[in-house]
Amino acid sequence: MTRIAFVGLGIMGLPMAKNLVRAGHEVVGYNRSEAKRGKLADAGGTAAGSVPEAVRGAEVVITMLPDSPDVEAVVLGREGVLDSAGRGTLLVDMSTIAPATARTVAQRASEAGLRALDAPVSGGEQGAVDGTLSIMVGGERAHFDAALPLLEVLGATVVHVGPAGAGQTVKAANQLIVAGTIQLVAEALTYLDAQAVELEPAVRVLSGGLAGSAVLERKATGMLAREFTPGFRVDLHHKDLGIVVDSAREAGVVVPLGAVVAQLMAAARAQGLGELDHSALLLGVERLCGRSSD
Amino acid sequence: MTRIAFVGLGIMGLPMAKNLVRAGHEVVGYNRSEAKRGKLADAGGTAAGSVPEAVRGAEVVITMLPDSPDVEAVVLGREGVLDSAGRGTLLVDMSTIAPATARTVAQRASEAGLRALDAPVSGGEQGAVDGTLSIMVGGERAHFDAALPLLEVLGATVVHVGPAGAGQTVKAANQLIVAGTIQLVAEALTYLDAQAVELEPAVRVLSGGLAGSAVLERKATGMLAREFTPGFRVDLHHKDLGIVVDSAREAGVVVPLGAVVAQLMAAARAQGLGELDHSALLLGVERLCGRSSD
Amino acid sequence: MTRIAFVGLGIMGLPMAKNLVRAGHEVVGYNRSEAKRGKLADAGGTAAGSVPEAVRGAEVVITMLPDSPDVEAVVLGREGVLDSAGRGTLLVDMSTIAPATARTVAQRASEAGLRALDAPVSGGEQGAVDGTLSIMVGGERAHFDAALPLLEVLGATVVHVGPAGAGQTVKAANQLIVAGTIQLVAEALTYLDAQAVELEPAVRVLSGGLAGSAVLERKATGMLAREFTPGFRVDLHHKDLGIVVDSAREAGVVVPLGAVVAQLMAAARAQGLGELDHSALLLGVERLCGRSSD
Amino acid sequence: MTRIAFVGLGIMGLPMAKNLVRAGHEVVGYNRSEAKRGKLADAGGTAAGSVPEAVRGAEVVITMLPDSPDVEAVVLGREGVLDSAGRGTLLVDMSTIAPATARTVAQRASEAGLRALDAPVSGGEQGAVDGTLSIMVGGERAHFDAALPLLEVLGATVVHVGPAGAGQTVKAANQLIVAGTIQLVAEALTYLDAQAVELEPAVRVLSGGLAGSAVLERKATGMLAREFTPGFRVDLHHKDLGIVVDSAREAGVVVPLGAVVAQLMAAARAQGLGELDHSALLLGVERLCGRSSD
Repeated sequence: MTRIAFVGLGIMGLPMAKNLVRAGHEVVGYNRSEAKRGKLADAGGTAAGSVPEAVRGAEVVITMLPDSPDVEAVVLGREGVLDSAGRGTLLVDMSTIAPATARTVAQRASEAGLRALDAPVSGGEQGAVDGTLSIMVGGERAHFDAALPLLEVLGATVVHVGPAGAGQTVKAANQLIVAGTIQLVAEALTYLDAQAVELEPAVRVLSGGLAGSAVLERKATGMLAREFTPGFRVDLHHKDLGIVVDSAREAGVVVPLGAVVAQLMAAARAQGLGELDHSALLLGVERLCGRSSD
Repeated sequence: MTRIAFVGLGIMGLPMAKNLVRAGHEVVGYNRSEAKRGKLADAGGTAAGSVPEAVRGAEVVITMLPDSPDVEAVVLGREGVLDSAGRGTLLVDMSTIAPATARTVAQRASEAGLRALDAPVSGGEQGAVDGTLSIMVGGERAHFDAALPLLEVLGATVVHVGPAGAGQTVKAANQLIVAGTIQLVAEALTYLDAQAVELEPAVRVLSGGLAGSAVLERKATGMLAREFTPGFRVDLHHKDLGIVVDSAREAGVVVPLGAVVAQLMAAARAQGLGELDHSALLLGVERLCGRSSD
Repeated sequence: MTRIAFVGLGIMGLPMAKNLVRAGHEVVGYNRSEAKRGKLADAGGTAAGSVPEAVRGAEVVITMLPDSPDVEAVVLGREGVLDSAGRGTLLVDMSTIAPATARTVAQRASEAGLRALDAPVSGGEQGAVDGTLSIMVGGERAHFDAALPLLEVLGATVVHVGPAGAGQTVKAANQLIVAGTIQLVAEALTYLDAQAVELEPAVRVLSGGLAGSAVLERKATGMLAREFTPGFRVDLHHKDLGIVVDSAREAGVVVPLGAVVAQLMAAARAQGLGELDHSALLLGVERLCGRSSD
Repeated sequence: MTRIAFVGLGIMGLPMAKNLVRAGHEVVGYNRSEAKRGKLADAGGTAAGSVPEAVRGAEVVITMLPDSPDVEAVVLGREGVLDSAGRGTLLVDMSTIAPATARTVAQRASEAGLRALDAPVSGGEQGAVDGTLSIMVGGERAHFDAALPLLEVLGATVVHVGPAGAGQTVKAANQLIVAGTIQLVAEALTYLDAQAVELEPAVRVLSGGLAGSAVLERKATGMLAREFTPGFRVDLHHKDLGIVVDSAREAGVVVPLGAVVAQLMAAARAQGLGELDHSALLLGVERLCGRSSD
């Protein structure tokens, strides 16, 4: 049994914290909204009234927050994790943030005597509930080994991918590939539809070969049915592609398709599709072609 | 047992023709080079000395040729299939050619009293040998039904996708998605490598989620090992992307990622990578970033 | 005085032919529509009833036609220029067509004993009327020297740019740069407008520096006034960008911005803007950004 | 005569400060390096030993610094301009920085009782020496009117383009158009060269029509001569395109060509061309096409 502080009990964080409770750990949770904390207490955890209260005495601190500024505030800020946690505490940030911020957090944590990992996830709410997330972890190998038993409660695939920031870098690469693949499928479907091809069998045969992808399997049916309830929102993917483009620029890496799809995601958002699932890139292609009735 | 004329006994055509022989059909084959015809005869088929000789008396004519001009010559040209085949013959062109050419062939075949299908394949030489190709078929449904028993000898997935030309259109969409996905993976790998990420575990975790694809499964290992033996050559994929871009223009469809990846494939070819596997788009990205030692 | 056959008396061709009449030459014109021929006769030329009738006895044949197939038909076709013109005749094709077609025409003309030049123009209807066109000429230098006195009647800038086809290649490059520059200006104006910048003074200061261009000078005012009467139509520019992308592919040249702007021009056309001036690329950008009221 | 503090006496700042001295103003200059300050003193100005010393008693403070962090430090930082300047002082920042930073500076300056303008320039070192810069000014119209007599000493075209930040926004748009136009010209020249066109006359005829631009006039000769001494460096233009792409994202504006040319500029830099003139985008295109000997 490990004493865990869990900061950030949102759509993803709450089911993850519950899974840790269920696995027999002592979980003290904090969220700005009191309602969320209550739900953790109902599930057998403990609600804390502040970050320091949650963190005090914890062996492991897990953070699951919306964006870079939130992580900076909660971890580095006044009355934040670094101020309150004991030396040697393991800090696992599972938020999706910029790699550069993750490296700063790791550096500052190390200076404060903590052991830090960046461990963003993919797999969505369902993966969080089922404990089947993919978790990509950056930081020292020894810290990864120490965190592994807990991370395996949360995810089905837990992989150490390199030093501090590497987890976030892999998450960014993930978002680049996913956005690009959705856009390719959207272009292909529009191209086929414009030429009197039957889309359902076409998707079937495309899925069977080298064009096959998780996007084609999980998203194409919804796209054909014009069902764009998220899932993962255009707005969030737009944020993530900003991370991709900026960090590629810093790293001196050229991402031509990445840059173009970032523009197309920005267009979808600017056209008011931000609240839809990212597969709504299809609507963007259709509008470009003057084929949209939406 | 069906009497089949098979024109084009190359890397793909020969094993396909052999599979038809093995399934008990009478196959008369023709290829410009005499050596190839001999191999079909060795496998139990019959070698013809000309297209008319192969086609005369055939119930079904299958063509498997390199490019649009070849199909035009063999089917529409003097002493071609239309000149020699009896009324009612089923013509199945399995080459990868421009959708517009396929529609012309179907139209002209119909005028000559033949029943035509366009039925390009994916799955490569291995799929041809194993009889596990994916086959995307355009043309009248009744013709498709008539051809199905033979096509199921050649492929594991045989799908009717629409009217004449639709098979080629789906094949073009397939080539668009495949090229784009390879390029996305190439950008992602370069981005990760530039930031000290361990690539092998990164590929593993990416494959498990929504970024997963047949390209990542089948091509990433070779890319990491810098092994670019084809497989499917850059030169051929470049030809196919020309079909995509041109037919999209004719159809009034906008394919932004498709157009950019067509440029990048053209760049790979112009840089002398045309004989390599299309996964050599990775080398193109590395050169753009000044990271290549190749 | 030279005996000139002029085939193609459209918006551009008629005023050009009239300028040759005015300069003292004997001009026999042909156009499919009889009305157009009559206008040349009114201006002092002679109307012919067919291409052979126009061409017979001419020292110089000038063609000014809409597209490659028209040139192929009029020059290479049955009862075309090559069939009718005497050996040594100078053939000057001033249409905008594919460089490959221009090379074919030159080759075939040479085989028929003619001397051929490709000599497309820029400068629009006004330039044709005023005799101030820019004329970019491909073909043998000696042929260029022979044609120069006549071409200087039609244009203010007449330049020999290389062997057969080179004129068309330069025209294609012209169309690439013009489309790209309009798109850049459209992106810049939208970017500025979204950030509360006063556009009129911004255009003034941009025009004064390294961002200055003929597009900014001649098109920006219309764009700000949302005045998109052609000028040069999106439809035609779309055709020309097809020539650019295809001929670049044949030449092994990569044109990343060219390919993207070709997509954006195709989008404008697909959205129903084909009849507007090419500066309507601005509307395309605004729609991408969800900012359009048009 | 006005009492002016001038902070930042670099390649641009020093000749600008000298022009103000020459126009009869009292100029107190500060630069981190003492050598630079000495040069101002030699020219009739006064060297200050610190920002507060320069600023104290000044009616106008002009800053001309390399990048956003420098402006933040000098203006907003400890012992910065806002700490030292008297209420009502006119602060004119002529550096090229992010529009968002410019808005922050203006806001903070206003809170401190100062009147602020952002007034970036184009025209290069020569324009600074000659006093012929283009100056694009954001901020309140009344402040602009107050600054105009001084700015007209420095520039030939001085234009008020909107509220705080608007000057920087126009400068960013300028950099977008310039980079894009250079890239278009680079693509066109490579396309022409690959097809045996004579480049010098081609440039001449292109310059005369709608494809004409300041880039073609001032840069093409150097490109043909393969002379890439800056001028304006790839590294700096790369920085500026980062501002363009980021601020467009913030403003919800889609800039497809801008995003692609930003990638190509990043590629040029990554390939080691950062110290060359931005017209070295030509080398990037040639390498893409496998045509480079550089």
